[in-house]
Formats: sequence, structure tokens, C-alpha cells
Amino acid sequence: MSLIQVINPNTSQAMTETIGAAARAAASPGTDIIAVSPSQGVPSIEGHFDEAIAAIGVLEQVKRGREQGVSGHVIACFGDPGLLAARELATGPVIGIAEAAMHTATLVATRFSIVTTLPRTLIIARHLLQQYGFTHHCAALHAIDLPVLALEDGSGLAQEKVREQCLQAKLQDGSGAIVLGCGGMATLARELTQELGMPVIDGVSAAVKMVEALVALGFGTSKHGDLARPIAKPLSEAFQHLN
Amino acid sequence: MSLIQVINPNTSQAMTETIGAAARAAASPGTDIIAVSPSQGVPSIEGHFDEAIAAIGVLEQVKRGREQGVSGHVIACFGDPGLLAARELATGPVIGIAEAAMHTATLVATRFSIVTTLPRTLIIARHLLQQYGFTHHCAALHAIDLPVLALEDGSGLAQEKVREQCLQAKLQDGSGAIVLGCGGMATLARELTQELGMPVIDGVSAAVKMVEALVALGFGTSKHGDLARPIAKPLSEAFQHLN
Amino acid sequence: MSLIQVINPNTSQAMTETIGAAARAAASPGTDIIAVSPSQGVPSIEGHFDEAIAAIGVLEQVKRGREQGVSGHVIACFGDPGLLAARELATGPVIGIAEAAMHTATLVATRFSIVTTLPRTLIIARHLLQQYGFTHHCAALHAIDLPVLALEDGSGLAQEKVREQCLQAKLQDGSGAIVLGCGGMATLARELTQELGMPVIDGVSAAVKMVEALVALGFGTSKHGDLARPIAKPLSEAFQHLN
Amino acid sequence: MSLIQVINPNTSQAMTETIGAAARAAASPGTDIIAVSPSQGVPSIEGHFDEAIAAIGVLEQVKRGREQGVSGHVIACFGDPGLLAARELATGPVIGIAEAAMHTATLVATRFSIVTTLPRTLIIARHLLQQYGFTHHCAALHAIDLPVLALEDGSGLAQEKVREQCLQAKLQDGSGAIVLGCGGMATLARELTQELGMPVIDGVSAAVKMVEALVALGFGTSKHGDLARPIAKPLSEAFQHLN
Amino acid sequence: MSLIQVINPNTSQAMTETIGAAARAAASPGTDIIAVSPSQGVPSIEGHFDEAIAAIGVLEQVKRGREQGVSGHVIACFGDPGLLAARELATGPVIGIAEAAMHTATLVATRFSIVTTLPRTLIIARHLLQQYGFTHHCAALHAIDLPVLALEDGSGLAQEKVREQCLQAKLQDGSGAIVLGCGGMATLARELTQELGMPVIDGVSAAVKMVEALVALGFGTSKHGDLARPIAKPLSEAFQHLN
Amino acid sequence: MSLIQVINPNTSQAMTETIGAAARAAASPGTDIIAVSPSQGVPSIEGHFDEAIAAIGVLEQVKRGREQGVSGHVIACFGDPGLLAARELATGPVIGIAEAAMHTATLVATRFSIVTTLPRTLIIARHLLQQYGFTHHCAALHAIDLPVLALEDGSGLAQEKVREQCLQAKLQDGSGAIVLGCGGMATLARELTQELGMPVIDGVSAAVKMVEALVALGFGTSKHGDLARPIAKPLSEAFQHLN
Repeated sequence: MSLIQVINPNTSQAMTETIGAAARAAASPGTDIIAVSPSQGVPSIEGHFDEAIAAIGVLEQVKRGREQGVSGHVIACFGDPGLLAARELATGPVIGIAEAAMHTATLVATRFSIVTTLPRTLIIARHLLQQYGFTHHCAALHAIDLPVLALEDGSGLAQEKVREQCLQAKLQDGSGAIVLGCGGMATLARELTQELGMPVIDGVSAAVKMVEALVALGFGTSKHGDLARPIAKPLSEAFQHLN
Repeated sequence: MSLIQVINPNTSQAMTETIGAAARAAASPGTDIIAVSPSQGVPSIEGHFDEAIAAIGVLEQVKRGREQGVSGHVIACFGDPGLLAARELATGPVIGIAEAAMHTATLVATRFSIVTTLPRTLIIARHLLQQYGFTHHCAALHAIDLPVLALEDGSGLAQEKVREQCLQAKLQDGSGAIVLGCGGMATLARELTQELGMPVIDGVSAAVKMVEALVALGFGTSKHGDLARPIAKPLSEAFQHLN
Repeated sequence: MSLIQVINPNTSQAMTETIGAAARAAASPGTDIIAVSPSQGVPSIEGHFDEAIAAIGVLEQVKRGREQGVSGHVIACFGDPGLLAARELATGPVIGIAEAAMHTATLVATRFSIVTTLPRTLIIARHLLQQYGFTHHCAALHAIDLPVLALEDGSGLAQEKVREQCLQAKLQDGSGAIVLGCGGMATLARELTQELGMPVIDGVSAAVKMVEALVALGFGTSKHGDLARPIAKPLSEAFQHLN
Repeated sequence: MSLIQVINPNTSQAMTETIGAAARAAASPGTDIIAVSPSQGVPSIEGHFDEAIAAIGVLEQVKRGREQGVSGHVIACFGDPGLLAARELATGPVIGIAEAAMHTATLVATRFSIVTTLPRTLIIARHLLQQYGFTHHCAALHAIDLPVLALEDGSGLAQEKVREQCLQAKLQDGSGAIVLGCGGMATLARELTQELGMPVIDGVSAAVKMVEALVALGFGTSKHGDLARPIAKPLSEAFQHLN
Repeated sequence: MSLIQVINPNTSQAMTETIGAAARAAASPGTDIIAVSPSQGVPSIEGHFDEAIAAIGVLEQVKRGREQGVSGHVIACFGDPGLLAARELATGPVIGIAEAAMHTATLVATRFSIVTTLPRTLIIARHLLQQYGFTHHCAALHAIDLPVLALEDGSGLAQEKVREQCLQAKLQDGSGAIVLGCGGMATLARELTQELGMPVIDGVSAAVKMVEALVALGFGTSKHGDLARPIAKPLSEAFQHLN
Repeated sequence: MSLIQVINPNTSQAMTETIGAAARAAASPGTDIIAVSPSQGVPSIEGHFDEAIAAIGVLEQVKRGREQGVSGHVIACFGDPGLLAARELATGPVIGIAEAAMHTATLVATRFSIVTTLPRTLIIARHLLQQYGFTHHCAALHAIDLPVLALEDGSGLAQEKVREQCLQAKLQDGSGAIVLGCGGMATLARELTQELGMPVIDGVSAAVKMVEALVALGFGTSKHGDLARPIAKPLSEAFQHLN
């Protein structure tokens, strides 16, 4: 029995539920999902400042997950906030949803497009493409120009804009797959995949499968070298819960 | 119930068995493995010429697998011969073991080392690193300087040399994981992972998990764009079985 | 007296003639051209599957050419199928026409455009640009969106579309040269060069000159290192003619 | 009159003093330095986990600095923790010391070496080289293999090891400048520059000069585009001081 | 007291004055500016040929400046002609204005646009982006399609075109800063920065601040390694003044 | 009848003869070689300063060659000084010997080594590798640590050191070809090719063949775009001979 902790790095309960639902839909029979969010943080993540705060929440949850004996962790925000820090802290694997979606896209298509929320988050996606090695695999980036929480306002407007951008990407980009650039878009992937007739990839479900795969292969995060456990040192009070 | 076809691109039956065993050990309860090799080809793959021949065998088997209704395909040679051609032919996902091992390594470590067989195959690994985007994630490449089939000669010499190179890589490269650069090394990974205390990654098992993951996510190879089915055209007699 | 084997990797006789004519027009007085095509293969090459099959035909012909004592070989398909495998097999130089055209373009202009046939072949050109080091020298890629054999249907439609794309490239791309992305376009280059007033480069003639140059310099393919002759091993019946 | 806030992202008072001294020594007559450290954090920064915590302290101080009307900010830890987040929060310029030292090195030499503390921090330097565009300008990275706080233990051992590594870098790397990879090494630069007869660059003083320069040019961080102020949103209690 | 030599590499006196004015406006109280231009050269620099000639004038002036005891040198043409040669000759720092503007842009924004004069100079900017490491930091390049000296014709037309291109860059490029790609645009930067509400960067003033910073830090050009003084050798008469 | 101008960019008559001999040995029956050197310049080229001066001599000769009606030009110094400027000035093709040797090496081997003179010139080779796109094709760079003119001192010492470095490169680098990094090494290539049993490439002969090839193909330097003739403008007296 495998237990995967899916961490929504923001504090939006609605989004945690969206993400949790997508994770559960993707999980294998033998996998249980705990969808969590930080006790303290930002309600949505739309820039580097938000990410820096969210990273602390991710670490808080990774530590808690490790203590609960989870098999692995998913960081369910498209900027993968705190990914390498979380890997130091974790014993099991830690997968970010941008990472998961981008890797997956390169396995089913030669080039992919990204559809995300606000234009200001595009730079985060660009930096991740570079860090993960996929700059040349990305044909184009698109932003719907609506904030993250528009995906949870019940109006369906943001969802419709995502769909429009995906259709446009299909027509214009010459790419074979589309990566959805926000955890809040997780539940749209299956339907868009069918409508468009090409893989539209949600990182939450992709990340769940990657954690399952790594756990089955017997791999946690490497503790040899630069992802070894953080060197023990006295933290100030505000951060002692992370030690 | 999922059926994964694991294709040993060379004609060595001993290696097909090694690879099949590794694939079965990695497969989930709901997955069946068919380990196959081409009806015609080369007994081992140690260069571009061997790869070109092996690619035909891969296509022959992918076509057969597709007709058998397999869910996905693994190309179990570290050069990933015929990968993009196979993706055109396939409906389900197709994963190469170099690709699988390299992707996996970047998920558990910041940089990895490669240990392969003959020095002349290093260029193939270098080209794949570049194509997949992982040139900067690879700290060093090592060759044991023994041919592929030395892994099947029963003497254990090649296995010992692999172990030595892995130990050296651990000491010198500053990397956090090691990728085994040959399908014939598949069964060494678990033991070396334990002995070295760091992930030593076999691409066969990694690829099986990736195919399982993609199938579970509902993704085959994208048929929109440049991996669409090959354009139908009359093939000469020698290749008609591939159509 | 030098003998260059120009291999059309597809089985279209019309295209072999087009290519042979372009090669002969480019050859120096002391050079004889043998234009050949595989005994078995695909009638046109428009994807990775077609390329994998064509590579076998290329090897078959390279072996035969070597036995005939040719000085060098040209692979006359814009994807350069089987190039490195052919280099292992050959003693003399082997030049692909994409390679030849791209190298030539960088010698007469700072950046170049590519005009090719079907959009699905663009990914092959992109991968070659990366492998040869010319990604940053290519200003743009264009596809006429007609199949390769449209160049041989006698209607002149494909030729007119090539011309249109070249004119558009001249206006829009800010590049100084245009590379024609198909062996079947070989005979268009001189005329377009004159009409456009800028180098429009056909890889067939460029490759012939490169082989002549290497032969004159006394260089064959390096047999030291990873392009050494394939390691001798028993091939299955279907491939024994390649040994 | 210009006021520059130099933020030691760790909570080591000794290091704040070292850094403050280096900053003051570098400041122009018209510049005042405030050397600060976070109220809460880690005593030293030796990995991604430490950096994630330190980033919060950096943001806390940047906000405070902004309220105090400082002209600009320096992040005085070689990993530049929280740099882009701080830029969103700040009005004036924000410069990291790794960034400052690397930029400076490329202005006085064609290639540079880096000497840092623990081997596990090398990956942070590598990622910054890639993000800033200087991967090809860095000839080699060296680690003294002592923790950051060894620089403050009064024994001089760490300082001696830094000197040894610098001498070795001069002999072996073929580079024209050396970048000191830790804020705690700030006061060693002038002396080593003289002893080695080549620029040995401390990022603290370099960053102070860069902030002064940007302020004099009338540039703060661009508020057009992706470094605009963070979108206002309700933060949890633990992070409200950052808003 | 610091003396900075600002070299206009062309022989246009009007441009030397424009550049000198911008440099003086940027200089710190303790800095004196000498704005010079070569005794022999080209009236404007709009290609590689012009640059090759201008480089000699730059060296002539760098040598003279060194003899006058200047603290450092600025090469005030956006192609940074003769930069590395000048660094060999100089003892103090030498900064090109393209280099200065590009570095500065990356410190205040994640990506920048360039607005320059003639389209044919774009290739020079592209090559500098690559050499300095900033290819991925540049969002787009624009040319006003007017010659350099149009900036000195008094009509204001060129200035208006610069303004238009800057406005367009702001709307379209998704970048956070604009780099002005000609020394003759130096005096436009402050006003455009205000009008556009984003950093519009002139390399002349940026370079002056960088030289001041390097001088204050005690750094000249590294004389260890490949920027050491040119090896003494007998020059022909026409170049003896450079020795 | 084709006339190729081979320009030794330095003023050493001995080296002009060495280069001329190599060029003549490489020229086709129908090709005449004029080996020239600048009327004014440096006796050897060992850095950027020397290159800047040499570039003027190259332009002087290119202009003269154009007036003489030569078919194309070779710049016979391994730094390819003035290459793009010369291309603007020329009508026919202009090939640098570093460019020629590097391109040739990638046609006969997957990776190559470079053996050059002084360590300080390595940076020039590195920059050319980057500009031409061959950074990843170069396995290693070696310097014999003797000045250029040691190749002309008659002692044979420099030649012996070149041989030693080539042997070492063969043993250590895992490359398939060696590029000789100085025009003065031109006559060593054939013998070393035989002794080492791998291509040892002299750029002078390679460049002659490339010019012949381009001329035969009907290509001069592209005059469309950024290599168009320099814009006509009044040059100062010292440079009027270049107009």
C-alpha cells in the first residue's frame, strides 16, 4: 500500500480539492492520496514572491508527510516551488507538476505548448524549461490572462479561455501536446485531450504516476550528494517546525 | 489488464531473457510483459550501423505488438534505436530505456553519471543527452571497455567492471545517481543501488513504469503533428511486413 | 579520376534522375557520378519511419559503393538518413545533403532559412540543426505543405510553391541564404539563386563538392574512434548483404 | 545621499559584521550601508532547504528596507536566495552577490573560476551560472569542503583553504579571475587579489557598487512586466509582515 | 579623482558630443570624463567592415588614454568594436556600451528588448548576446531602419522612430526593459524611461558607472591569462602608434 | 580558370610561403593561388590586439584581390581575423582557416581536438567554436606553449611539440580528428595524418577546397542582408585604401 502526499502549495481549499480529485482519479488501486495545503501561506501563486512563501508551506508539509510515512510527495503548483529544498528534506521522491507535465509531454510528442494563467508567470515556466532541459522542446507559451483563482470562481470563464488557448495552440504552434500550466486546471485535461485529439497534460496526475513509478522502482530522492538531508542546525523559532 | 511489449532490439536470446526478467520484476500486478526480439537483426548493438539494422527489428515488433493490442512498447537498448520511427508507427506510448533512465535520474538527483559498455557507444549517449535536453544534467560518462555480450558470457567479469566504474563514478563525479548504459545491465541495478547507497538506474524497469504511467493517464503517442502515423505508401517487398 | 556515389535513399526513379542530374552538373571535370537508389525501400521519405527504412537502403548502397571503389558517398535526402551508420561502413567520406546545404549556408551568410516539403518533416530539420550545431544560424523554417513526390508530378505546382516560400523567406526572415529542404528540389537552386539575388542552396550539388574536397585533401571518414568499421558480427539473413 | 541595505540572509551576527564591513569598505562617500539579517532564519546557508528559509528573511528585510526608504538592496549570500521574489517586492534595485561577482568577473576576464565552501553548494552555483547566462564563462568550480561558519571560527583554517584553492585555480584553470563563493569570504578579496596578481572578486563589494550605479542611473527594478509588485492578496498570519 | 576616457569609435564630432554629454551626466562627482574619437576612421559604424576600422581607432585612443593615466575606458559604439583587443592593451577596465546596457538590463528585468538603427546591425547584437551569455535574456530585437547619422541630422525623425519602436516593444515583447542600441541614442534614455514607465537603458551612462565601480573595487582588466598585455613585437609603420 | 587569394594576415614572409605552399598543394589543376600578406601589420598573431591590426591588412588584401578579379579569398590565420568584415567587402566567398578546419573535422569525425600555439590564443578558438556552432563537437583544446614564429625558426622544436600534443590528443580525448590551430602548421597535416592514422586537419588546404567548391557552385558571399557591401562613406586618409 502506497501513500502519496499531494501538496497544494497555496491555501485555497477549493484548489486543494480540485487537485486532490485529479490526484485520486490518477492513482493506482494500491495508492492512497492525501491532499494537503500549508497551514500558512498565500491563497494563490502568481509570481516569485508568492512562490517564496509557498515554498515554506511545501517544506512544512513535506516534513509532516515524511513523519506520516508517506511514500512520496507531489508539489501541485506549476512553478514547482521549493522543489529542490523539498528533495533535501524528503526521503521518498518529490515531483513538481510542471516537471511532471513537461517530462510527460516529451515522451508523447516532439514539441509541446504551454497554456498558463497570468502573463507574469510565463517567466517561471521559461526558467523551469531551462532548468529541466526542455527549452528546445517547447514550441510556444500562452497565457489566458486571468488570475489563478478565476479557475475556482464557478463561472467557467477561465476554463473556456483555457480551451480557446488550447485550440489556438493546436492550430498555430506545430506542437504535438499541450501542457496545462496550473494545478487548478487539473480536471480539464481528459476532456480537452478528447476534444482536441491530442495529449493535453495535467501535471497533477502525471506527477502522481511518476511518484508511484519511482516508489515501485525502489527509488527515493538520492541522499548521496547535493540533495542529502539538510545539515542539522538551530533554526529560529518561526522555522523550527521545519527541522 | 495492461500488456507491455518489451523489445530487445538485438537478436541475443540471453539478453532478451535478462531484459524480460527485469521488466517483469518492475511490472505492476495488473501488467503483463511480452519480451520479444526481432526475427532478423544483429546479435548486439555497439554503434550506429548496428542501430540502423536494429531499428528495422524494432519497427517489425512495434507493428506486431500494435496488432496484438499491446498497451505500449519499450525499446530496450541504450541507444533507443528507432524511437521516433516507432512512435509514428505506434498508437500507444513508446519509451526507450536510455530516455527512461535519464529522465528518472533527473527526478531523484541534480546530476547523474552514465556507465556503459564500449567507448565507441559514448557518442550515442552524448547525442541522446542533447536530444532529450539533459547534456547539463550529466556529470560524466564512463565505459567499461567490454562488448555488450560480455554481460552474457557467464563469467561475471563485465558485471564486476560495471561495479568498479559505478564506485569510481560515486567517488569522482559529484553526481547523485548513476544510469546503467546497456539493457544487459538491467538486473544489476537493485543490488548496486543498495551497495552504493545511491540510485543506480536501469532503463528497462524505468521504461516499464513510464509506459504503465502513460497508459494509466490515457496517453498514447500523440497522433497530432509530426508523430502521426506514417503516410501510407507502397513499400518494397523486404519492408512490406512493416506497413 | 574520382567516382562519387550519390545515393537517393528512396526508390523513386524520377527522383534519382533529378538528383543525378544535379550531381553531374556540380561535379568537377575529373569526377564521375553514379546515382543509385536502394533495391528495396520507400518511394519517398516524409518522416522517421520512412527514414529508418531508407537507412537500410543507404547502407546497402554504401557497401556496394565501397566494393566498387568509389571515392565517397552522398546521401541525397534532406534528413540525412543513416549518416553516422554509413560513416562507420564507409572508408571514404560520406556527406548528407542537409549537412552539406547547412554548412554551405553558414559560409556565405550569417543566418539562413529552410524551405522544405511537409510540415511533419520540420522536426527532422530541427534535430539536424541541433546535431550539426546550427540552431542559432537558422532564422526560420518553412514548409510548402505538399508531399515529396509532388515535386515529380510534372505539374510544376510544387516548384511554384517552393518559389513562393523562398520569396516570402527573403522578405520576412532577415536571413542571407535559403536552404532547399529536399533532394527533389535540387534542380531549382540555380534559377532561384538568380531570381532572388541571394544564395539558394541545393544540398546535392553542395555535397558533391564537399566529397570532392575531402577526397582531394586525402580525408576519408575517420576510422579512429567511434566511426570505426562496425564490429564484425553475424547478421541475420535479411541483413547479411550489409556486412 | 544614498542608503543601501545589505542583507545577510542568515542569522549569524558575525557574518553580518563581516559582510557589513566589506560593504562599507566598498561604499562611495555618499553612500550609507545598513547591514541587517533576518529576525528569524538559519545560522548559515548550505543548501536549498536553508535557502528557502533564508528567502523569507530576505523578503522581510527588503520590505523593511523599502519602508525605511533605502535606495537599493544587496542579498549577501552566494546562492542569491529569494532574488526574483525580492525584486518583485522592491522598488529600488536588488542585487545578489553571486550575480554581482559573476557579472564583474566577465568584465575583467574572459573566463573565471569559483571557490566556494561545501561541495553540496556547487549545484546552486551551477544553476545560477545557467540562469545568468555565464555557464560558458566559468572555467571551473572549487569547494574548500568546510562549512560556511568555519569562516567565522577565528582559526583562519577556512581562510587558508580558500587561499590554497585560489592558488590552485590560478595554476590549473586557465581563467583570468576568481569569484569567491560565500559572503563570509568578503574580506579576503583585496589581499588575495594582490597576492595572486589577478582579480579575486567578492560579491558583497561588487553588489554595493552595482546598486550605487543603478541608483545613479535612475533605475530601480522594472515594475513593467513580470517583476511588478506582487498581486495584493491576503497572506496568512505568519507571512503578514511581508505584505 | 578618477578620469574616464569615453571613446566614440567613429569620427563624427556631433556624436562624440552626444556621447560625452551622456557620459558627463552619468559621472559621479569625483569623476572626470574625456570624450574622444579616433584621429582616423569611419564617420559612422553600421557593419563589420566599419567595426574593423573603428577597432584601430579604439586601440589608438586606449593607448593614449593609458599614457594619460586614465582610470578606465568606455567603447561607445553598440557593437563594442575592439573590446577584447582594447582589454589586452589597457591596464584599467574597458567596458563596451552594448555590454554595459545588456548587463544592466538583466539586473532590473528578467528579459529585455533591443532597439537599434539599421537591420544589418542586428547580427552584431545577436553575436554579442551570444558572447556575453544573454541570448535567452533578450525577448526581441527591433531596428528603426535609419542610418546612425540620422540621429544627428537635427530633424528628430530618428528619435521619433526610436520612441515608436520602444512603445511597440513595450506592448508586444513581454520584456521588462529596453536597451538602446546605438551610442547616438544616449540622451534619449531618461525621457523614454519616464514616458514608458520602464527602464530604457543607454549603454554610455551604464558603462561609465561600471568603470567607476570597477575602479573603486580596485579592479583593472585581468593581466593574468589571455587578456595580458599584447606580446611585444615590431609593428609596421602604420600601426606603430598602437604599440 | 579560378584564382584564389590566400591571405596570410601577418607580415611574416616565411609564413606566407609556408601557407602558400600548402595552398598550392591543395589547389585543383584549374586553380591558381596568390599568397599575399598585408603591406602593414604584425609579424605574428597571438591575441586580440594582433588580430585587430591584422584585420585591416586582411581588408586591404581582400579589396586588392577583388580588384584583381580573384574568385575567392582565404584568411590564413586560425583566429579568422576580420572574417565578417571581409565578407562584406568581398563579392566572392571568403573562408577562414579555423572555420574551414572545424567544418571539415565535423564531416569526418563526431568530435575533434584542437592543437594550437600559445595558451592565450585558446580563448579565440573557444569563441570561434561558439560562433560557428561547434562547441559540443570539440572534445579538447591543447596548446604547445610556443609562440607562432617558433614554427618558422628552423629548429623543428615547435613541430615536434605539435606532434607530441597530437599523439596525446589521440590517446586521451576520445576524438576522431585533430585540427591544427595555426596557419604555420599547414605543412604538417599530411604527415601527421599518416603517422596517427586519423585525420589531422590543416585549415589552409581545407579553406582552399571550400572556396573552390563555393565558386564551382556559383556562390559568392550573400549580398542580400547583413553581409551586403559596406555602406559607402568617407573614410579618413589612413583607411581610404580600403574603400
